[in-house]
Amino acid sequence: MSIDSYEASRKRSDEIRADLPEHPEKYTMLTGDRPTGRLHLGHYFGTIRERVALQDLGVTTRIIIADYQVITDRDTTDNIADNVRNMVIDYLACGIDPKKTIIFTHSAVPALNQLMLPFLSLVTESELMRNPTVKAEMDASGHVLSGLLLTYPVHQACDILFCKGNIVPVGKDQLPHIEQTRQIARRFNERYGHVFPEPDGLLNNSPAIPGLDGRKMSKSYGNAIALSATAEETAKLIKKSQTDPDRFITFDPEARPGVSALLTTAALCTGRDEAEIAAEIGDGGSGTLKKYVTESVNAYLAPIRERRTELASDMDYIEDVLHEGNCRANDIANATLDEVRETMGMVY
Amino acid sequence: MSIDSYEASRKRSDEIRADLPEHPEKYTMLTGDRPTGRLHLGHYFGTIRERVALQDLGVTTRIIIADYQVITDRDTTDNIADNVRNMVIDYLACGIDPKKTIIFTHSAVPALNQLMLPFLSLVTESELMRNPTVKAEMDASGHVLSGLLLTYPVHQACDILFCKGNIVPVGKDQLPHIEQTRQIARRFNERYGHVFPEPDGLLNNSPAIPGLDGRKMSKSYGNAIALSATAEETAKLIKKSQTDPDRFITFDPEARPGVSALLTTAALCTGRDEAEIAAEIGDGGSGTLKKYVTESVNAYLAPIRERRTELASDMDYIEDVLHEGNCRANDIANATLDEVRETMGMVY
Repeated sequence: MSIDSYEASRKRSDEIRADLPEHPEKYTMLTGDRPTGRLHLGHYFGTIRERVALQDLGVTTRIIIADYQVITDRDTTDNIADNVRNMVIDYLACGIDPKKTIIFTHSAVPALNQLMLPFLSLVTESELMRNPTVKAEMDASGHVLSGLLLTYPVHQACDILFCKGNIVPVGKDQLPHIEQTRQIARRFNERYGHVFPEPDGLLNNSPAIPGLDGRKMSKSYGNAIALSATAEETAKLIKKSQTDPDRFITFDPEARPGVSALLTTAALCTGRDEAEIAAEIGDGGSGTLKKYVTESVNAYLAPIRERRTELASDMDYIEDVLHEGNCRANDIANATLDEVRETMGMVY
Repeated sequence: MSIDSYEASRKRSDEIRADLPEHPEKYTMLTGDRPTGRLHLGHYFGTIRERVALQDLGVTTRIIIADYQVITDRDTTDNIADNVRNMVIDYLACGIDPKKTIIFTHSAVPALNQLMLPFLSLVTESELMRNPTVKAEMDASGHVLSGLLLTYPVHQACDILFCKGNIVPVGKDQLPHIEQTRQIARRFNERYGHVFPEPDGLLNNSPAIPGLDGRKMSKSYGNAIALSATAEETAKLIKKSQTDPDRFITFDPEARPGVSALLTTAALCTGRDEAEIAAEIGDGGSGTLKKYVTESVNAYLAPIRERRTELASDMDYIEDVLHEGNCRANDIANATLDEVRETMGMVY
């Protein structure tokens, strides 16, 4: 992606952010997660918090639990049903309201998936091959490039366009996917007739949330605090995080990744500034810092965890939410597919 | 495809052919056509006639009108609804019985198309790239390789496996597709649990039917006699076909492609031998030959064309047949997809 087109996307994203509180009714947001484990603080501050805010602003919100994306780079669906149900619990505990927001899974919405066929006809093999993010994800997975990973930007276009989503929260590295979706929408509309919007990426304004070791927060690095962890598990995880021998606490992400990650975590949970927290702790050492971080995280997550426990005690309700979400997603997908068939002349 | 694996496929196909009249109930046949124009004599003698025979033998028969395959290598769906309806008329006129055989279209069966997602995860990008038939079809189309053409063997696997088809009539050049389908079935069964059969190709025993000029019969070459052509149109087409100045008629496909193609056409329609027909005409010249061919073709097609005219006068019935076929295909696809979801643990 060229700097110019990044700047254009950034500008467009900023304009939309400014317009969102004024005209929330103009926007349909599609977002989602792969159900490969529990949601953690990184997901929360990176995206979930914003989804709740946009939902509450009145933006039409659809959240996809991308169960088919689990098998883009792995050979098993072990624990997937458990992961999906816990993801619903996490969403609701964080404030996603199933009366306002449709939560659904890929595998339950055939008409969405059917869009793969016409959409695949609108992209070339070389466009699929040169998507930089697909290559990066393949390298990260250490897995051979599957047909599903190769075509996943097209599947993502199906996710976004089946509900005529026009905004998609993304990081910079996902802009090529949005561009692919825009291209598919444009080509479909030009070739067959207007059906789809050309969605815009809503670029993340917050900095990346570091894991406890300063690397990207990820379950597989063991540096992530799950929303569903208990206060004790959280304390234990923070206690064994790597800091450094310098007792005087300062915020310096480059030189002191461990200490600085802890400061950022506390800062996000308290709404305070990292440097201010560091100054307060002074030469209290990493023990004092970790105690403060643990208290901040546990205090911040306490109400979420309380709702989580309550929700988890009524799994029938969780199933109902998902079932209802899947039904509503199917209604939308069926209506869009009907429109696609009509526009393509495939009505017999 | 190696000679060894071709020989193995040939052997397996011959075994099945021998077993078919004995145990038709063991077999489910999936076959179909792209609705890009009218069916012609090449289709009829190449495959339709055999489908009818297998249907009447008691083999479970499903015929897909592959409307999404129309856009693998073209940018338009012009006339597609008309082509689909005429294809149904052609099938019925040839003896396909909608009470025994399900006739349906891709675009009407979302659960079939959804199988693309799990199936794409079971093939690698390099397996997709090295399918020799995909390359050949791309070259023939003169069109850039679309994502849909690249992945079409996987879509064909969906067609075959959604109804648990275990035999598929094919030419030698389509064996790589059958091998791809077998591989997908095998990998799915190994990874998640047994759901799918590993289908076999039923290799065509009849020689390729030449067009009127000796090349492959194809609407785009103008050398094809459509089943739906009138007797007059047929006479006209045969009359302007290219022969050669030698008045003495002999069967020699290499040296005399035009004359020999006419002889083969007459032979197929009369059940006689090419050389015998040639000897009978002797030095009667191409005029006599063409007269004989025209009479043979028109006589052979007369009952089919009569049924065709009758069927075409009741388009409501044609729509009903397709609607009913699509409903039944959806029932089968939904049941298979449920089984797939169950086996993959995607039941929420």
